[in-house]
Amino acid sequence: MYVKPGLFEVEQRRCAGAMAVFGVPYDGTTSYRPGARFGPTAIRQASVSLENYSPEQDMDLEDISFFDQGDLDIPLGSPSPVIGAVERAVDGLLAENLCPIMLGGEHSLTAGAVRAVARHYPEVAVVQFDAHADLREAYLGEKFSHACAMRRCTEVLSPGCLLQVGIRSGTRLEFEWMRKQGSLLAPETAVLRKRLAQLGKRRPLYVTLDLDVFDPSCVPGTGTPEPGGIDWHRFAALLACLPGESIVGADVMELAPELDPTGVSSVWAAKVLRELLLKIGSGA
Amino acid sequence: MYVKPGLFEVEQRRCAGAMAVFGVPYDGTTSYRPGARFGPTAIRQASVSLENYSPEQDMDLEDISFFDQGDLDIPLGSPSPVIGAVERAVDGLLAENLCPIMLGGEHSLTAGAVRAVARHYPEVAVVQFDAHADLREAYLGEKFSHACAMRRCTEVLSPGCLLQVGIRSGTRLEFEWMRKQGSLLAPETAVLRKRLAQLGKRRPLYVTLDLDVFDPSCVPGTGTPEPGGIDWHRFAALLACLPGESIVGADVMELAPELDPTGVSSVWAAKVLRELLLKIGSGA
Amino acid sequence: MYVKPGLFEVEQRRCAGAMAVFGVPYDGTTSYRPGARFGPTAIRQASVSLENYSPEQDMDLEDISFFDQGDLDIPLGSPSPVIGAVERAVDGLLAENLCPIMLGGEHSLTAGAVRAVARHYPEVAVVQFDAHADLREAYLGEKFSHACAMRRCTEVLSPGCLLQVGIRSGTRLEFEWMRKQGSLLAPETAVLRKRLAQLGKRRPLYVTLDLDVFDPSCVPGTGTPEPGGIDWHRFAALLACLPGESIVGADVMELAPELDPTGVSSVWAAKVLRELLLKIGSGA
Amino acid sequence: MYVKPGLFEVEQRRCAGAMAVFGVPYDGTTSYRPGARFGPTAIRQASVSLENYSPEQDMDLEDISFFDQGDLDIPLGSPSPVIGAVERAVDGLLAENLCPIMLGGEHSLTAGAVRAVARHYPEVAVVQFDAHADLREAYLGEKFSHACAMRRCTEVLSPGCLLQVGIRSGTRLEFEWMRKQGSLLAPETAVLRKRLAQLGKRRPLYVTLDLDVFDPSCVPGTGTPEPGGIDWHRFAALLACLPGESIVGADVMELAPELDPTGVSSVWAAKVLRELLLKIGSGA
Amino acid sequence: MYVKPGLFEVEQRRCAGAMAVFGVPYDGTTSYRPGARFGPTAIRQASVSLENYSPEQDMDLEDISFFDQGDLDIPLGSPSPVIGAVERAVDGLLAENLCPIMLGGEHSLTAGAVRAVARHYPEVAVVQFDAHADLREAYLGEKFSHACAMRRCTEVLSPGCLLQVGIRSGTRLEFEWMRKQGSLLAPETAVLRKRLAQLGKRRPLYVTLDLDVFDPSCVPGTGTPEPGGIDWHRFAALLACLPGESIVGADVMELAPELDPTGVSSVWAAKVLRELLLKIGSGA
Amino acid sequence: MYVKPGLFEVEQRRCAGAMAVFGVPYDGTTSYRPGARFGPTAIRQASVSLENYSPEQDMDLEDISFFDQGDLDIPLGSPSPVIGAVERAVDGLLAENLCPIMLGGEHSLTAGAVRAVARHYPEVAVVQFDAHADLREAYLGEKFSHACAMRRCTEVLSPGCLLQVGIRSGTRLEFEWMRKQGSLLAPETAVLRKRLAQLGKRRPLYVTLDLDVFDPSCVPGTGTPEPGGIDWHRFAALLACLPGESIVGADVMELAPELDPTGVSSVWAAKVLRELLLKIGSGA
Repeated sequence: MYVKPGLFEVEQRRCAGAMAVFGVPYDGTTSYRPGARFGPTAIRQASVSLENYSPEQDMDLEDISFFDQGDLDIPLGSPSPVIGAVERAVDGLLAENLCPIMLGGEHSLTAGAVRAVARHYPEVAVVQFDAHADLREAYLGEKFSHACAMRRCTEVLSPGCLLQVGIRSGTRLEFEWMRKQGSLLAPETAVLRKRLAQLGKRRPLYVTLDLDVFDPSCVPGTGTPEPGGIDWHRFAALLACLPGESIVGADVMELAPELDPTGVSSVWAAKVLRELLLKIGSGA
Repeated sequence: MYVKPGLFEVEQRRCAGAMAVFGVPYDGTTSYRPGARFGPTAIRQASVSLENYSPEQDMDLEDISFFDQGDLDIPLGSPSPVIGAVERAVDGLLAENLCPIMLGGEHSLTAGAVRAVARHYPEVAVVQFDAHADLREAYLGEKFSHACAMRRCTEVLSPGCLLQVGIRSGTRLEFEWMRKQGSLLAPETAVLRKRLAQLGKRRPLYVTLDLDVFDPSCVPGTGTPEPGGIDWHRFAALLACLPGESIVGADVMELAPELDPTGVSSVWAAKVLRELLLKIGSGA
Repeated sequence: MYVKPGLFEVEQRRCAGAMAVFGVPYDGTTSYRPGARFGPTAIRQASVSLENYSPEQDMDLEDISFFDQGDLDIPLGSPSPVIGAVERAVDGLLAENLCPIMLGGEHSLTAGAVRAVARHYPEVAVVQFDAHADLREAYLGEKFSHACAMRRCTEVLSPGCLLQVGIRSGTRLEFEWMRKQGSLLAPETAVLRKRLAQLGKRRPLYVTLDLDVFDPSCVPGTGTPEPGGIDWHRFAALLACLPGESIVGADVMELAPELDPTGVSSVWAAKVLRELLLKIGSGA
Repeated sequence: MYVKPGLFEVEQRRCAGAMAVFGVPYDGTTSYRPGARFGPTAIRQASVSLENYSPEQDMDLEDISFFDQGDLDIPLGSPSPVIGAVERAVDGLLAENLCPIMLGGEHSLTAGAVRAVARHYPEVAVVQFDAHADLREAYLGEKFSHACAMRRCTEVLSPGCLLQVGIRSGTRLEFEWMRKQGSLLAPETAVLRKRLAQLGKRRPLYVTLDLDVFDPSCVPGTGTPEPGGIDWHRFAALLACLPGESIVGADVMELAPELDPTGVSSVWAAKVLRELLLKIGSGA
Repeated sequence: MYVKPGLFEVEQRRCAGAMAVFGVPYDGTTSYRPGARFGPTAIRQASVSLENYSPEQDMDLEDISFFDQGDLDIPLGSPSPVIGAVERAVDGLLAENLCPIMLGGEHSLTAGAVRAVARHYPEVAVVQFDAHADLREAYLGEKFSHACAMRRCTEVLSPGCLLQVGIRSGTRLEFEWMRKQGSLLAPETAVLRKRLAQLGKRRPLYVTLDLDVFDPSCVPGTGTPEPGGIDWHRFAALLACLPGESIVGADVMELAPELDPTGVSSVWAAKVLRELLLKIGSGA
Repeated sequence: MYVKPGLFEVEQRRCAGAMAVFGVPYDGTTSYRPGARFGPTAIRQASVSLENYSPEQDMDLEDISFFDQGDLDIPLGSPSPVIGAVERAVDGLLAENLCPIMLGGEHSLTAGAVRAVARHYPEVAVVQFDAHADLREAYLGEKFSHACAMRRCTEVLSPGCLLQVGIRSGTRLEFEWMRKQGSLLAPETAVLRKRLAQLGKRRPLYVTLDLDVFDPSCVPGTGTPEPGGIDWHRFAALLACLPGESIVGADVMELAPELDPTGVSSVWAAKVLRELLLKIGSGA
């Protein structure tokens, strides 16, 4: 007789191997426009406007197993304890044989998730969809700023295990680093496929997606929009390159819903989440 | 470790005599600006910004018993089946010895709640806080329109058992009816106290509050704002006149949160709800 | 079978003595936030959300005669030709024995209306509801700026024939002028009644209302909001002091609807217009 | 001297064969975000910002015959009587040898228009531009929901006479139906041309356009935005494939202007309307 | 020939005894709705819409000495270093015989200003205009949260030297503390005058104003709006009670301009600042 | 210790040959939606969200010389004196051997800049990025309307020295003129390169960019959005065709930031400015 709003409109299943979705409403180091703390709730609310079926993947959310853990209980203020909480949460989920799917919140949180994943899967590679390199050693005096998210990740990854797709903003130093490391990939399917092949079929993958990888025309509701991003068709094609059975964790970060009064950014993020869940859940 | 957003930040208690809060996300007959369907969710979200303690009543939500049922599961479209669902829900809650507290949704729904309450408490009087008389026999061909809400209620109430506070909009016919019936009360504490005294101490009361009773400067987020309403101080003074132990049900209606991008209207509605819960829960 | 949106939802009547409502979508000299050009259309759209009956005056729009002329056809750019067009339009309406009711548009336009009115009624007094003195000789090099509106009016009025109600912003020079002339009135009914009595019962009146006379909490949608204004109750009381049968023209100016996404400012302006129409139409 | 706002800034002509534009401000079954009731007015207002000349078609609105009927007078509430009113209106226009052009309002209304058109032109084919299949038998208990719009149409169309362009959301059942029927067309000019050729040159066409066929980056102001749509260039190319002389009716649906505070969605809808009018009016 | 935007439109003067205005764009501990970081810039921009003359005080900004320092250069993240930076800045200004006027930013920053002021004026009393008690020992694990701002201040103040005006939200513990300490003042001029008299004429005063002391109808653009606040007239009357020559520092905090798309909140804050500058600068 | 907001976050250099950025906050002839007067301030504010480094050009703002002059001090009202002020300002900058970079403000201002540039460089060609032809002889009776901007420019240019890229809106007459003159260029790199080659390597160029050349999905915050524009990738490719060492002046016009509450339009304009500065500053 009564209903409670939740994630999509489908029965959720908590079983071995299921995907565990959780939110982290934190945006404490956001330098330009805060608001990513409202991301998880907005994704849940927008998810009910979408169908459960994806014609692009010919898969339905009814066919896979996932559930919504709710939001992590976190303190406000400095990022370090929050990233620690994310690390412990992801650690716990992996220990339960669950696949962690984090909804941000700001991108700095990914460092905590990747640290936990790298402990369980030392060979893991990270596929980063993003507009910004996020490779600074520190930013405004803070090592755990969102502008340092991927730098923190590289500290626990093997060389060559960071793939950066869609990056179009950074310092000269960051771009020199990426070119030297070969981590920067043009957002093209041929390029992505080739690099994934080099990593090998058995390679565990963690997918981190900063919503500003999309053009601001698509997702204006994010803290540091950067003109020149990809559109939905390009994203769908790139996602299709990823081997779903290899993905051991993922996140969808930096939705700041109140910056986009049309609500489209939240729907967009929810569709990204749906496609990720179907991609991983299908194992295809 | 994980938290789920709920109503206020306090442990909820479902016990005999407790207040049962439920939402009804319906705005199908709204003629000017729809959006009241988003009211219940917005009140829940805004509630977490408020303290649990009310200095005006010197009461804390920790001191009383209430819980959130979630939203009624309702069809879109014509109002009649939705009002029926409200009637059945309120009926069920009263049968369980719970006190129904409805979050709207449009004002037409009150007709369903009052029908159920009048079955359990035939002597019930309704105290209506509202800008509009809502006394039309029908509106745009629909008997269950929000413009007819109180007309439908009078059909199950004894004569003299409707008190209309704050009304400042209606047709000439509606105002003539109110003046003849003596149902129209100036929004002053002396006037309200006197009428309540006439009804007698034992009289069960149902309190229905259309948020447009407040001036649009206070609550712009409602479908038909009407300049000239009351402010918070006036509302608090009027509420203090009501005998909490006599209230057998209540509702807070017509919040259309998306019409007010500042979010103040939602906070306002949540504070109204808090004060109502404390008033009823304290029995004072 | 088909309907066209108009002013209020009532049959319009064009007969001798009727009120002729017209809009002037001009905001070319607005210095801070433009948008008053959208005022006339927004007032028309919001008018349909209001009842035709006013309980405060116990009058209905059905009881009086008025019609909507549509908007004046005006050039963009400098104010002088627009004010000239207003003057000619008001002249024409008065010659037809119609009562001009202008919807702004910026306040500078009032100078044109008052010039025409003063030709037909040389003894006319102007009652100005406003937050700003608007008495500058020139502003940013422009004699016909909105900041000079009332200065231009005084040039065609007899001494003592300007009553300024609600003014709370101006230069020291403007306030010295007002205090010396005695044109500044506290927004209190006793004060207004006394000054009107001094002017004499037969005195023709032109009422000009800049919506920023209201507190910005009530009407945020105006170009230069000024904290500390009147609320609806105060306005209704002041309006009740005016002798409807003496009013030979009126205007409602400076609604900038796009500055207020809640839409309340437009509803407020429409209610002001309704009350003015009923006040004049009733002749009471 | 006075002007009234209308559709575009061009003289309207009501003559035999002219296009009759009318609005239907109804959104009663909208499940996610209402607001399409404000679509017709917003299209009219935005139309004045556009030139009358289309460089893409090298045609000017001065060259063709159309007029604006205003909005249908409809009741609020359940969809069935509104769809009936649309059917009668379209019937009447066709009987007068006028070409009906409907401005929505929600997509469910198309069922009424197509029913009338199919009576006059039993061989008619419908070209649907849309993000959603709209092929449900019923939705939330309502046969006339916007989610069932095209299902209702198929009941009066001959087999093979529904062409669905741009669909990217639906249930698995809907997609299976479309694939089986062959009604689903990739939004490519070659595909559309081929299917139109199969239908034959003499085939009367009804064009229904749900604005969510466009990517949400282009038209965020619609009730259920769906990432992955077409852009303007693609639409113009597809429209160029249609034979203007065969089109016997058309509609532009689901603009919810208040969801897009930038106003771009309304301008977009107005430009779609202009191109449709020129396409049909030119007969090319 | 060129102009640069600044604070008000008046020549600024940096001389002994002048007021030094500075902004602190920090909102790192804001728990509900961030955005106060944009406060200082918004106050500067809105200030140009106001006249330099205050009819309420009969004073003009031309008559007094003040200048705008710009914003403090601060790190993002945890509050402690930012509060330290504020303390050093205020210390430096006082050492130069300047009167510090801080524009927030969140209320926690006041602790730094008061610490510096109390070192220079050990007898200082703090007059707090606020909706919230801000007396928590810690909040969400953080001692320097905005919810603890005044608790931190009391640690450097003599007993009885905190006056709290307009408080209407807090925990039961906070209200018990205030009632016991006698720090809670009803927002009435007689009450404030009496308490100031008890403190003695020579008492140095620091005035801290959280904009949420105003009713949300007046200032919706703040992080935690609380219905039931004061309006402009009440504020002006209370301000008139303060002896300008005793004020040794002041702040205007918690403007979150992006939460109020009408821009009124920013204008309101700028007018508060103007009145404070004139009050202090006049020494009356 | 204190910082003042400025253009980008880089040290500015005023030296011979440097670029002099200045704003002109004027939108007095804007016919549809005003607001371009707020453009210069919004570009400055948004500029701080961008990196100083451009990966597309492999250049950093640290490598080049530019400074911000602030805004021109201009009167409101008619366009002629403002355009005169622009002409004098550009004249002065060129006389100092500085490269003028104007931030609009409406497009009519470009006429003043081009007049001054043509005096210093009689052979100059203008490259116009725009959605609208802006070639009217007069518009609404005003020769200096934004709809006439390029017509005014052609009066001081040699034949063949106007290149119009991205135009997709105008009257039939304007398109006939463009086709006859050959000034209309498809927005393709091959086309642009060829025309530039015809003009010769030594040809001085003035680049004027009306932000509505971009699709409204990218830049909704402009007065007359026109569906069908270019995206960022296309713009970057076209800009790469221009020879930086030949550009003697440029402008970025028609940002109306308040029309786009997401703030993306302002970021977009700031990135356009950054790329222009780097292109000219690099001389590549």
